[in-house]
Order: sequence, then structure tokens, then C-alpha cells
Amino acid sequence: MQRYFLNQTLDTNQFELVKDTDTYQHFGRVLRAKVGSQAEFVDQQQRLVVAKVDSIDAEKMALTIVKELHQQVELPVAVTLVVSPLKNDRSDWLVQKATELGVSRIVFTRMARSVVDWQKQAAKKQVRLEKIALAAAQQSHRLVVAKIDLLKVEQALQIKADMALVAWEESAKEGESSRFVQEISTLKTGQSLCLWFGPEGGLSSYEIQQLVQADYKPVGLGPRILRAETAPIYALSGISVLTELQ
Amino acid sequence: MQRYFLNQTLDTNQFELVKDTDTYQHFGRVLRAKVGSQAEFVDQQQRLVVAKVDSIDAEKMALTIVKELHQQVELPVAVTLVVSPLKNDRSDWLVQKATELGVSRIVFTRMARSVVDWQKQAAKKQVRLEKIALAAAQQSHRLVVAKIDLLKVEQALQIKADMALVAWEESAKEGESSRFVQEISTLKTGQSLCLWFGPEGGLSSYEIQQLVQADYKPVGLGPRILRAETAPIYALSGISVLTELQ
Repeated sequence: MQRYFLNQTLDTNQFELVKDTDTYQHFGRVLRAKVGSQAEFVDQQQRLVVAKVDSIDAEKMALTIVKELHQQVELPVAVTLVVSPLKNDRSDWLVQKATELGVSRIVFTRMARSVVDWQKQAAKKQVRLEKIALAAAQQSHRLVVAKIDLLKVEQALQIKADMALVAWEESAKEGESSRFVQEISTLKTGQSLCLWFGPEGGLSSYEIQQLVQADYKPVGLGPRILRAETAPIYALSGISVLTELQ
Repeated sequence: MQRYFLNQTLDTNQFELVKDTDTYQHFGRVLRAKVGSQAEFVDQQQRLVVAKVDSIDAEKMALTIVKELHQQVELPVAVTLVVSPLKNDRSDWLVQKATELGVSRIVFTRMARSVVDWQKQAAKKQVRLEKIALAAAQQSHRLVVAKIDLLKVEQALQIKADMALVAWEESAKEGESSRFVQEISTLKTGQSLCLWFGPEGGLSSYEIQQLVQADYKPVGLGPRILRAETAPIYALSGISVLTELQ
């Protein structure tokens, strides 16, 4: 069943979708909802319901809640990714996949070796990436939409979390291979984790120093060289396997 | 350092690259190799060496092996993915990412609900996907290039492996959540694993029956709905975390 996120909190058993919303457009026009059609809706309080269409006209759609659903679909830990803007459509792709895999927040920040600069198009990029995150959250049946932020490095370094890890290739080369699993295994439900990843050309040694000073622990992510957009996906999958499938 | 796969076995300390090979073109033209330039080469026996250019002309490049490298970069288990052809560039993307994550073989097979049919362009598709796998193997510094096959379902069902698992959404809905980890944890180094994934619309119940009869065990991959191209990446990352990072 199709799932939509609502910009409202559901207080009663009835609610309306008005015509100038994406949800009205998609459910009404693309899926051609009729009286009796059903879909899932997540409100601003992460309340998940199935609702059916009572009436529909060119201006609005009236719906009644049929039942409430209780699903545990969010990662037990709130994961923030800090990544560099990436070339071509790789940032779009990263937002879509990270959302499917349960990320809470994705922070794009320009690093020393970043090859892409979004400064002149920041607002446009943010809108685009938020749309991708919303669509992916609906498609993967999540209860929250990942937050997208474009921050400066100094701001990103201020992010507070119960644990902070930085993916570092050299860590693997130095023979370290199990710190990622060890660290993730100590996380408790409800805690937060910030994961920092370098751009295509890797993190500079100055950046690693800065991150270590800010209490980031360097971790390796296996023996193969992963692209800048693959490493966060590997880490999120690993966190899910270690915290949801054990 | 750039890594290349060779179509030859290195018997002596010297070898040549001739001008009509991709490696000559890339190393010579794109990277503008000169006398003294070095690169890594993997031969047909997975022997990995660093070699330097002794001489170069319009016809060929002569190289001498400088040193031999011994790296453990392959997954401890040989993983075959069986997947459906996917829409747009999602098959390309899957081959690139799965190669980075250590896959041994990717089999594309048209399933009941596949929305894409490659029958008329099978040869062209295979060449394209093999090129993507080769580039990704070089970029991620692997020792083997993932094999790409386009097979019929009946042929894919004949694939022999020490363990066979099928990713099945309903498995997660039935409350099963730890079988994937349990099964992967029993695999020993050198064993083989075949992982079967459905197309965008999922596997039909007849297909699941067929797979179960062929000794595939259904496993869930967590509480969120993953796209057809994301599920294999999630599984490969999980296998790496469970077998390489523990």
C-alpha cells in the first residue's frame, strides 16, 4: 500500500488533503484514488494510520482513518552522516539509498579535497535532496524523513552525538579491522551516532587530526577501497545488520 | 596507485602492453605514463605486482616487475548474486557497487514480475556490464573481476553453492529477523553462497516455492522495504561486516 507523509497532526478520525499538495496530486492523479481507496499516512507525530477516501473533488479529498498501525521500522540508533558533496548524481543516489537504510540526518559539508562546490546553488540543492529523501522514505515505508543539511565544516564539527566515528582508509591499512563492529556493538537503543566520510580524494591528515580532536574515532570499513558514496551505504547496512538482525 | 587487470600470466620479470589494449590506452594516454612510471598489475593467476615502465613507443610499452604484493582483499566466501534486469541505469549501478563490495559473480535472470527484458540486447548488455565490473574491480583494488552472466531461470536454479538464500520481504513480516545473520555466521572461509533477489515487484509465490524446493532458505533483510537494487548491496555489506570486520 502507498505511504504518504502528512504536514499535519491527526487529532480526530477525519482529515483532508487539499489540491495543491503533492500527496493530493499523487494519490488523486497518479494513483487515481476513488471513494473507498486506501493508503497509509504518517502524521507529524509519527502516527501511522490506514485511511480511506470518503469524498473527492477538484479542490480536496476527505478521508477517514480505518485503523492505526504500529510498526518498528526505524533503526534503533539515530545515525547522522556527514559527507562531502559528490560529483554527478552521486549525492542524489546517496540520499535515496541512505534513506532506505534508515538514516536520520545527512549533512553535506565541503571538505579540503571536495571536487564539487554547491555554494551558489545551496538552496536549490537542499530542496532537491529533501524531495529525494521524502520519496525514498515513503517508498521504503519509514516513519520519519531524513533531515538534509548543508553546513560548513566548523558547524558540522559541532554536531553532538553519543558516538562519533570517521571512516578512514589508512585505519584499515594499519591492520585495524574490527573497531567499527566493536564500537557499534556498544550502542544502546535510542542513542545517537555521527559518521563522517571523506570526499572522492579522501580526508587530509589535517582533517583527520581535527576530527580526532573532536572525539571522532577512526574506523576501517574492510579491505577493499569503497567509493565516497558507497562507504556510507556499507556502514548503514552494517549498523542495521548488527542492531536489527542479530 | 592505479591498478590494472592483465589478460596474461606473468612468468618472468618483464612483460609488454600492446597498443590495442585498454590498459595501454589508459596507462599510456590517459595517465600519460613515461619511462619510470609505476602501476599495479593483476595477472590471470591473481598475482599482484608493481611494475615500472622501461620503454614506451606508439606500438607497445615494456615493463619490469619492481615488487610482488600480497593482499587479502577478497571476501572470505564466494558470493553469487542472482538478480532481475532492472530499469534505467539501476543494473549498471548494481554491478558497480556489488563489485566494490566483493561479489564473485552476478547472474541476471528474467523473473515472473521483471519489468525489463534484455533478450534482444543480451550480448550488448553483457559487454557493457563486464566493462563496468572491470573498472570497478580496478578502482576498488580487487584481485578478481566479478563474472557477469545472463541466464534463464531454469539455468540459474542449477547454480551449485554451499549455501543458498533468497531475500523475501514476507519473511520479515512474519517476524523472522535473525536468520540471515545466523546462516552467514555458519559459513567457513572458501565456501560459496548464492543469494537470490526478486525484481521491483517482488517474487511470486510460485517462484518462492520453486526456490525453496531448490534448497533456498528465505531470509528477511530488516524492517524497511529495500529497492530491488539496494537489497543485494545491503546483503553484501552485511556479509563483509560479519566475515571481515569481526
